[in-house]
Amino acid sequence: MKELIETLLKEKKYFEIKSELNELNAVEISDVLNQFKLPELVIMIFRLLKKDKAADVFPYLDSEHQEMIIHASTDIETREIFDELYFDDIVDIIEEMPSNIVKKILKNTDKKDRHLINQLLKYPDNSAGSIMTTEYVDLQKNMKVSEAIEEIRKTGKDKENIYTCYVTEKNGKLEGVLSLKELIAKKDSTEIEDIMNKNFVSVNTNDDQEIVADLFKKYDFIVMPVVDHENRILGIITVDDVMDVVDQEVTEDFHKMAGITSPTDDSYLKTNVFTMAKQRIGWLAVLMISDTISGNIIQGYEKVLAKSIILTAFIPMLMSSGGNVGSQSSTVVIRSLALGEISPKDAFKVIKKEFFIGTMVSIVLSVLNFIRLITLEKTDPTIALIVSLTLVFTIIISKLVGALLPLGAKIVKADPAVMATPLITTISDAVTLVIYFTFATTLLNSLK
Amino acid sequence: MKELIETLLKEKKYFEIKSELNELNAVEISDVLNQFKLPELVIMIFRLLKKDKAADVFPYLDSEHQEMIIHASTDIETREIFDELYFDDIVDIIEEMPSNIVKKILKNTDKKDRHLINQLLKYPDNSAGSIMTTEYVDLQKNMKVSEAIEEIRKTGKDKENIYTCYVTEKNGKLEGVLSLKELIAKKDSTEIEDIMNKNFVSVNTNDDQEIVADLFKKYDFIVMPVVDHENRILGIITVDDVMDVVDQEVTEDFHKMAGITSPTDDSYLKTNVFTMAKQRIGWLAVLMISDTISGNIIQGYEKVLAKSIILTAFIPMLMSSGGNVGSQSSTVVIRSLALGEISPKDAFKVIKKEFFIGTMVSIVLSVLNFIRLITLEKTDPTIALIVSLTLVFTIIISKLVGALLPLGAKIVKADPAVMATPLITTISDAVTLVIYFTFATTLLNSLK
Repeated sequence: MKELIETLLKEKKYFEIKSELNELNAVEISDVLNQFKLPELVIMIFRLLKKDKAADVFPYLDSEHQEMIIHASTDIETREIFDELYFDDIVDIIEEMPSNIVKKILKNTDKKDRHLINQLLKYPDNSAGSIMTTEYVDLQKNMKVSEAIEEIRKTGKDKENIYTCYVTEKNGKLEGVLSLKELIAKKDSTEIEDIMNKNFVSVNTNDDQEIVADLFKKYDFIVMPVVDHENRILGIITVDDVMDVVDQEVTEDFHKMAGITSPTDDSYLKTNVFTMAKQRIGWLAVLMISDTISGNIIQGYEKVLAKSIILTAFIPMLMSSGGNVGSQSSTVVIRSLALGEISPKDAFKVIKKEFFIGTMVSIVLSVLNFIRLITLEKTDPTIALIVSLTLVFTIIISKLVGALLPLGAKIVKADPAVMATPLITTISDAVTLVIYFTFATTLLNSLK
Repeated sequence: MKELIETLLKEKKYFEIKSELNELNAVEISDVLNQFKLPELVIMIFRLLKKDKAADVFPYLDSEHQEMIIHASTDIETREIFDELYFDDIVDIIEEMPSNIVKKILKNTDKKDRHLINQLLKYPDNSAGSIMTTEYVDLQKNMKVSEAIEEIRKTGKDKENIYTCYVTEKNGKLEGVLSLKELIAKKDSTEIEDIMNKNFVSVNTNDDQEIVADLFKKYDFIVMPVVDHENRILGIITVDDVMDVVDQEVTEDFHKMAGITSPTDDSYLKTNVFTMAKQRIGWLAVLMISDTISGNIIQGYEKVLAKSIILTAFIPMLMSSGGNVGSQSSTVVIRSLALGEISPKDAFKVIKKEFFIGTMVSIVLSVLNFIRLITLEKTDPTIALIVSLTLVFTIIISKLVGALLPLGAKIVKADPAVMATPLITTISDAVTLVIYFTFATTLLNSLK
């Protein structure tokens, strides 16, 4: 499509571009526009869109493209775009823009809207307030079904979501919730009060967005009300924004588990290398220093090593196996905690399970390893025995450490994901080496 | 709540239990019921629920609890529950039940429904067909808006989702899509044909559920139609099921990245230890054997090691740093690929970025390490230099390997997540050792 538009632009066939673009939906148009890099072209194509289509497309554009367009727009054009947008989208856009563009946007919104936008901008990052919008359907309990439907038909166009309606008192207190599906199925003369659900689930503006996402999953919601501490409704959160929250939280977990601190919300290609280097270096430095524990353990057994230098050759395999085993357990436990499949009260069950798995896995792998060493590698049987025995204990202990650390973190209300692979590997490395050299000293001395 | 119900059960205050339960919503009731383990109690409490509430609660129960209830239900009761359920929920339930229970369920559904259920059961796991349901709103293009609304008000109660309506030809071909929000905002006399969107997005029954999830995120859908190869509509997929798909796919990625094969869909506590041990042992065995490469490299340099046994002490730190660095890159790249932030065509940009990050990180860490070794640890300066130089190269190379492997996997259409931490660690271990011993041999010899 991009190539077609480019050709048409060169031939100045603007009418054809217009009809080509109007065949597409808003997301598809934004895909095309995002591929153009020259501001002149972006603006020219954007101006070819119908007014309402242009407003639909705008929130889906990259922030650089949004900036280009607002920068080139007149005040009237800016107002035309932002009049059509929902408040949560406006807030998202504003958060990415430089201050001169923000000023231009705010200048071109009504005083009332500007006040609301400023309030939404104040909610802390990752809070329910920061992802809510204010365009919801508001009903009164003494309305009849027919009146409610009439009201929705009249005002629904400007609401982000009309599929759940909120019944409020005069002071804004939320009294009941009613889905359009329930509403529309009732008789015209029924009173809203008789069919609304008084036992509804809501969140507070300051609740973490992760809690919001968990509630959406649990209740299969598509919208959810946000209230203040006096139960007055302030806005709604829609499921599409929750899907983004889920992605963001998962990315955060992935990054933390790989020892990357304070992940940004920006995408990979947009984050600059200095920020990325800074995010990655912290944990690496900590782990590098803590890894000297392993070094010190080895130095402490220098004499044993000097006598049988062959022992060194098995250190990588033993350490890696411990690390791999530990990261399997920690990954499974961290993910199960995140999904709510297990909680700290299941700690004993988890430990028991990991112990059994560890025992089975360790025996199979150790026997396999022993046979391989004495047959294929022609290793001295004593050394093979030392290595294989170490493997048994390493695997069981690493499994337990891998499961215990995230559970412990959860118990003390820390983030389980931080207790992941790198840290567990460091611990299991040290433990592995101590076990290895203990077996080595004991068995090699007793045989002499 | 569980305690309250238990007390009331002991006191045989069934009427009070009934009113307590009817205060709660379906999800909350299922939470309470799932806590009871005795079949007699579960069944007794379930029978206290109103008929329609009981059907709402049923899909949220654990499969063991569902089994208990169907087992104890009469044919009429079974029919009453399943008549109220949507087909996607019925299919989910059936998939978890033993064959005698499945027979009982199918016996108590209409012939037409039974046929449909059997068809839904046939779609492959993880396909769009396997998560769709068939209760959608069907409109004709010559209907007027008022007629369409009337139709929805009459039949909407039995549809899983009424918020997107599907306009079909007589032969079932999907001609257009219309949201209830758009429909309801139009004048009564408008014809559906004039307002329906002909340019809609649909998926095929055999499309992977991951594709479905990506489309939901891209277009902010709450429902999506599923069609056959002749564009006849077969069902719809709703966003709540897509949220489950997202969780499932993410869990799969986490597990694969930790070297766990064929993850099950069962939750942690429900999977038995043998299955889990089997899932974990495969990769461990492969990696254990490939780790002997590192062992062989060390053996090859036995003489150097014998001369300066102190070199051994730094092996764990060097190997861990390489592993940690590599897993940072691979995690970031795998996640960015999964989110569609990068694609194989960005490979060069990614490599350049990781190279710069690697260079910065490696220089900072190496200098830090060199200073620490000669001041705090009083290490011989030559050894400190060998270790620090190795660190520079290890970090840069591991960053590149960590980024390249998942990208390469994506290019050859393999799963990037499989190319994760354990495999990258093994490669980076071997590379690290070769660099280390090369520097050691060169520098130690040249100084002698």
